[in-house]
Formats: sequence, C-alpha cells, structure tokens
Amino acid sequence: MSLTVTYYVAASLDGFIAREDGSLDWLIPYEDDPEVAADFPAFEQSIDSLVMGRKTYEFLLSLDIWPHAGKVGWILSSKAHKPLAPDMTISRLTPVQVIEAANARGCRHLWLAGGGAIAGAFQQAGLITDYRITYVPVLLGYGVPLFGLGAAPTPLKTVNVKNFSCGLTQIHSQRVLKKESEKGVS
Amino acid sequence: MSLTVTYYVAASLDGFIAREDGSLDWLIPYEDDPEVAADFPAFEQSIDSLVMGRKTYEFLLSLDIWPHAGKVGWILSSKAHKPLAPDMTISRLTPVQVIEAANARGCRHLWLAGGGAIAGAFQQAGLITDYRITYVPVLLGYGVPLFGLGAAPTPLKTVNVKNFSCGLTQIHSQRVLKKESEKGVS
Repeated sequence: MSLTVTYYVAASLDGFIAREDGSLDWLIPYEDDPEVAADFPAFEQSIDSLVMGRKTYEFLLSLDIWPHAGKVGWILSSKAHKPLAPDMTISRLTPVQVIEAANARGCRHLWLAGGGAIAGAFQQAGLITDYRITYVPVLLGYGVPLFGLGAAPTPLKTVNVKNFSCGLTQIHSQRVLKKESEKGVS
Repeated sequence: MSLTVTYYVAASLDGFIAREDGSLDWLIPYEDDPEVAADFPAFEQSIDSLVMGRKTYEFLLSLDIWPHAGKVGWILSSKAHKPLAPDMTISRLTPVQVIEAANARGCRHLWLAGGGAIAGAFQQAGLITDYRITYVPVLLGYGVPLFGLGAAPTPLKTVNVKNFSCGLTQIHSQRVLKKESEKGVS
C-alpha cells in the first residue's frame, strides 16, 4: 500500500498562498459559502495524517486549537512547542524522514498542510503525489509562493476540476509516473 | 464604449508563463490538441488590437511572422525594430498611453499579449479588465511570473471556467467594480 501525499491548499490566481505577512484575509469572503465550507471536511475525512511547518503550527497555537483530532501529526520545527494533541511529533525531521515515519505508522493519506517552504521542500524531494489547489479569484501580486523558494519542474496530469459557484476553482492533479512523463517536462 | 483589455495567457499551476530562459517547451505536448488549438483563434476573432513587449516581439521577429494580420499593434520597445505589418506602432509608450491610443483609434478589445513585465506594468496601472489564464498541469518552480515583478492586489470575479479534456483549465475572471469590491480585497 503506498502513501498518498496531498498538497491541499488555496492560492491566488498568481500563485500565492498568503500575503507577505502571512495574512489570509483574502479568503474571508469565501469562508461562509456552503460549498466551500463543505470541501475541507470532505477532504479531511480522507486523510489519516498531516505534516506542517512551524509558522502554520504557531498560528494554531495562537488560537489554542487543534482542528485535526484523531489524525497523526508531524510538526517540522526545532522549537519546543506545546503539543496540542496526543498523537503529534514535534521535531525537525526531513521530508524523507516524515514519509518514512508515516509509512512505519501505516498511514495511507498524508496532508501536506503547508506552508509554502515545507511544500517546496517536499516538492524538491519528489514526495508529493497529489495537488489539490483551489484558485481564488484574486491577484495578490506578492506573498508566500505555492512552493516557497521554488519547486523542481514537474509534469502533472489533471485528475479533476471542481468549479465552485462562488467562483473558486479547485484543480486536482497528480504526479505523472516516469513512463508517462517521458514526452512531457522533466 | 469602453475598451476591454484582456490578459490571455497560459501559465503553470504555480503561476509562471515561461521558464527562466523564456522557454515555452512545456506547452508543446498540448499544441496539437484540437480543443486547445481552437481556443486561441476564437479569442483572436474577438480582439481588434494587441500590445506586447520587446521580448515577445523579438520572438516573432526571429520567426519573421506576424500572426495577427488586420489587428492594430503596439510594441513597447525603445529599439528600432523592423515592423512586421503595416498597422503597428513600435514605441516606448506607457500603459496609459497605449490605452489612450487604442481609445483614439476606436479599438474595443485589446489583447495584452505579454510578457510578464508588460502584464505587471498594466496591472500596476489598473488597466487590465479581463484575465483569461489557462492553467497547464505542470509545475515550473522558477521562471517568468504571470505579472513580472508583482501585481497590485486586486479582487476579481470569475466569469467562466473552461475545462479542456486534455487537462488544461482556463479561468476567465474580471476586475471587480469599485462598489462590488468594498467587502473584498483592496
């Protein structure tokens, strides 16, 4: 059984996941849309584990909430943070070590919860299998890029496109297997 | 009658319109798809004018072709290029001057043909009314961003999403009028 690693994230049309100061205020107009509000819980039901970076975790710490009860969590940080839930490893693991740990735990579906720097590190290591990027009709111009400092060029294939009536567009794509990608980008 | 200014462009899922060296090789696998091949001619029928930067024009010069016969063209460059067609202005106009010239000529629909730097300049000046970005299932990681050095934060509204069976996704969005955007991003 292989592990699915999904980068599920919202982005502006120009590819930013947060403003330069980390702000997500541009998502607020869509939060109460019923179709949008239903999307994440449906995704979360499909995952058994998640990994996030320090800044994303510190945001949850500031709210003192762990909205992912029952999931195995890896927080990639060298700080001694307070754990918000029992099944949580707070350590400076590499992306490969996280995947090894998730496989050792028998995980089947890991959510790469961000931020961009962590996504970039997993991407560079070739460890993301699925991308579910929800494009929001806004241009931010500057901010945190989808893959931090950059991603390795990677051909993908589109699995599904979900059009939300409020104007969001979720593109679900997957890494192309070696054989399939021979005529694509490398 | 107002002028529609459309940025019609293909981009990677992470928001780049070309590799760092300007290469568009990642588009080649899609060029022969009949649905893709039919999209641009349909768009081109709707425009009467276009504007492009020096690099985009030099690419056409290198091929010695002007595929936009019958359109009014502005090439933003300070070089003394060879004109490829009669109705072409090659000059270092500002984005505002281009819009003034297009209005003076009675143009109704201007295509902002790129590249990213020109798109960024028009975006910063608030002159783009329509965005038709075709997302290609590929991550480039680095390259020419959709809006060059950055765009002014701009809330948009989705007008239409076109799903190509080969996996491309074209999101057509429009600038939100002032009144509509009050609760959005500014």
